[in-house]
Amino acid sequence: MFQARARAEILKEVVNVVSTLVDEAKFTVNADGLTLRAVDPAHIAMVDLTLAKDAFEEFKADESEIGIDIDKLSQFLKLAKADDMVDLKHDEDKRKLKIVVGDITRHMSLIDTTGMSDPKVPNLELPASVTVRSDDLMQGIRASETVSDHIALVASPDGFEMSCEGDMDQVHWRKAKKDLGALEAPSIVRSLFPLEYFSNMLKSVSSGSAVTMHLGSDYPVKMEFKIAGEKGEVRYLLAPRIESND
Amino acid sequence: MFQARARAEILKEVVNVVSTLVDEAKFTVNADGLTLRAVDPAHIAMVDLTLAKDAFEEFKADESEIGIDIDKLSQFLKLAKADDMVDLKHDEDKRKLKIVVGDITRHMSLIDTTGMSDPKVPNLELPASVTVRSDDLMQGIRASETVSDHIALVASPDGFEMSCEGDMDQVHWRKAKKDLGALEAPSIVRSLFPLEYFSNMLKSVSSGSAVTMHLGSDYPVKMEFKIAGEKGEVRYLLAPRIESND
Amino acid sequence: MFQARARAEILKEVVNVVSTLVDEAKFTVNADGLTLRAVDPAHIAMVDLTLAKDAFEEFKADESEIGIDIDKLSQFLKLAKADDMVDLKHDEDKRKLKIVVGDITRHMSLIDTTGMSDPKVPNLELPASVTVRSDDLMQGIRASETVSDHIALVASPDGFEMSCEGDMDQVHWRKAKKDLGALEAPSIVRSLFPLEYFSNMLKSVSSGSAVTMHLGSDYPVKMEFKIAGEKGEVRYLLAPRIESND
Repeated sequence: MFQARARAEILKEVVNVVSTLVDEAKFTVNADGLTLRAVDPAHIAMVDLTLAKDAFEEFKADESEIGIDIDKLSQFLKLAKADDMVDLKHDEDKRKLKIVVGDITRHMSLIDTTGMSDPKVPNLELPASVTVRSDDLMQGIRASETVSDHIALVASPDGFEMSCEGDMDQVHWRKAKKDLGALEAPSIVRSLFPLEYFSNMLKSVSSGSAVTMHLGSDYPVKMEFKIAGEKGEVRYLLAPRIESND
Repeated sequence: MFQARARAEILKEVVNVVSTLVDEAKFTVNADGLTLRAVDPAHIAMVDLTLAKDAFEEFKADESEIGIDIDKLSQFLKLAKADDMVDLKHDEDKRKLKIVVGDITRHMSLIDTTGMSDPKVPNLELPASVTVRSDDLMQGIRASETVSDHIALVASPDGFEMSCEGDMDQVHWRKAKKDLGALEAPSIVRSLFPLEYFSNMLKSVSSGSAVTMHLGSDYPVKMEFKIAGEKGEVRYLLAPRIESND
Repeated sequence: MFQARARAEILKEVVNVVSTLVDEAKFTVNADGLTLRAVDPAHIAMVDLTLAKDAFEEFKADESEIGIDIDKLSQFLKLAKADDMVDLKHDEDKRKLKIVVGDITRHMSLIDTTGMSDPKVPNLELPASVTVRSDDLMQGIRASETVSDHIALVASPDGFEMSCEGDMDQVHWRKAKKDLGALEAPSIVRSLFPLEYFSNMLKSVSSGSAVTMHLGSDYPVKMEFKIAGEKGEVRYLLAPRIESND
């Protein structure tokens, strides 16, 4: 059983985050709220999202799994303004999700979740962490997009840098420790990432949010940020590219 | 003879309505104003438009027919702001329409109207009628567009519903009688329509306008709304699709 | 040596003007400022731009030439808001231009200027001149774009006209002498120009600017306007098309 009511804005945040990596997703609901874990088809990135029941106006659920076509849900939510209320109800017999916004009701066929994997979040020891505003990160990403397909994230005891090296041009975005939300780096760590993944992940973060990145050398990056007015949390993992030295 | 002056906004409304169904159109003018009747190339829809002479700032006309390339007129009107004055003059000798907006004059070749049909508006007895705000209708249409190519309009004594049934999902938009501008329905009537036509017709209606729909069961829908600050009137007719019951 | 600092807005104006005609350009800097002369690949148009050193916040330069990929510079400047400061520094050893906006640094490979021509501005005696607001010109251009690929510029003692004659339609844009910024025309002069070039040139002029055009009969047009708050100047030359009289 699952029945809930939420402001459209909250659900749009969830959809933005999930659609970055997958078209279809298995949401798990229980009495405490909603969780989702998914790996992208290329197995390069993972999302781990939790939304507490008090992010909703109303929320009632038994433990169950709901397979959703993210694109359909996203299209439907575009009909709603940020403050509109959205009612969700799982019809287990018909395998549908009933969604109501104002005068509109959609009965959406659910996706069979039996074949869908339950990815495990790997236990990573990442020595460095840095907190940066999403808008600042996006500016560095935009500057990099014309230069190369990869971006290096470099944390050092005195600052954080995104750096992008093309055949012709190089772009560096850098903030000193004093201009960062937080910075912990016992030594210099550096990893290289596919720029498009990193860019798409950051685009799903609301403007003005703080993103905390956990980093190592040639290790995945773990990005954490809050959604739903601090009542939800997202963790993205992105695998590194190995740097060639030719 | 035809010579007139109108606010650009009025002419833009006319062009929006007509371009929904045809690229070229024959306008008939006389001392009372302007009328147009046209059927779309697939013979699925008809438009019947009248614009009284007092929708114009100045208006002088003998009975005559003017064949206009709607796309050209639309492009030219895009140069004008809503409140700009547009001067129109029919040059019968050169078979041109002279249009003036501010410093710009266009001499536009007219289309030969001899081969263009004079569609007759069919006399339909439609038992139900309902009045709905165009914006509300557009929301129901947008919700339907991802689900199916057809939309059912259903009037009943206690409400009005648009409903769209796809293979996977269903969308319903519904308003109870008390939330509608007007509703007359002695019994339940239902007809199915091609969604794209219905959508394009509604898109030509100015935001905030009231649209009155006359409906039967498996009958065409007649949609009526005012333009030009109540000084013009549009009637659209749209043929139904027959519902298969397999 | 070249090292300078300018508001992003100033550099964006320069880039808009130059990118109208060429993808790569050779800028010449010296103690007084920056100049550029370039001819488009089809040899139909020329740009001659000067930007005085006091258009910059800081400016230091020895006589030197810098070959820039205009498209790359344009993309980078899009990261900056109008009032952001942009720092430029020529690294002669590495043949790069270092550009800094906020936290972002780009090291941009320069283009070899040895093969790039030094176009000479032809000495033209053009009998007529007229000054028109760029926005007014743009309106005439937009009205012409659907009618023909060519536009005639006609100056006479009592007014200025842009006129465009297609097979079907004609468009005329006209202002009387009293409505023009300035007008000098001892007699009627008329030249025909490729509309796309003329349109692209005018699009690079900031809204609200005054453009002075010098004209003859079947002669090039010379267009002059200020940039960078009067601290820079642009001269465009555009070759005429010969009018056929069939």
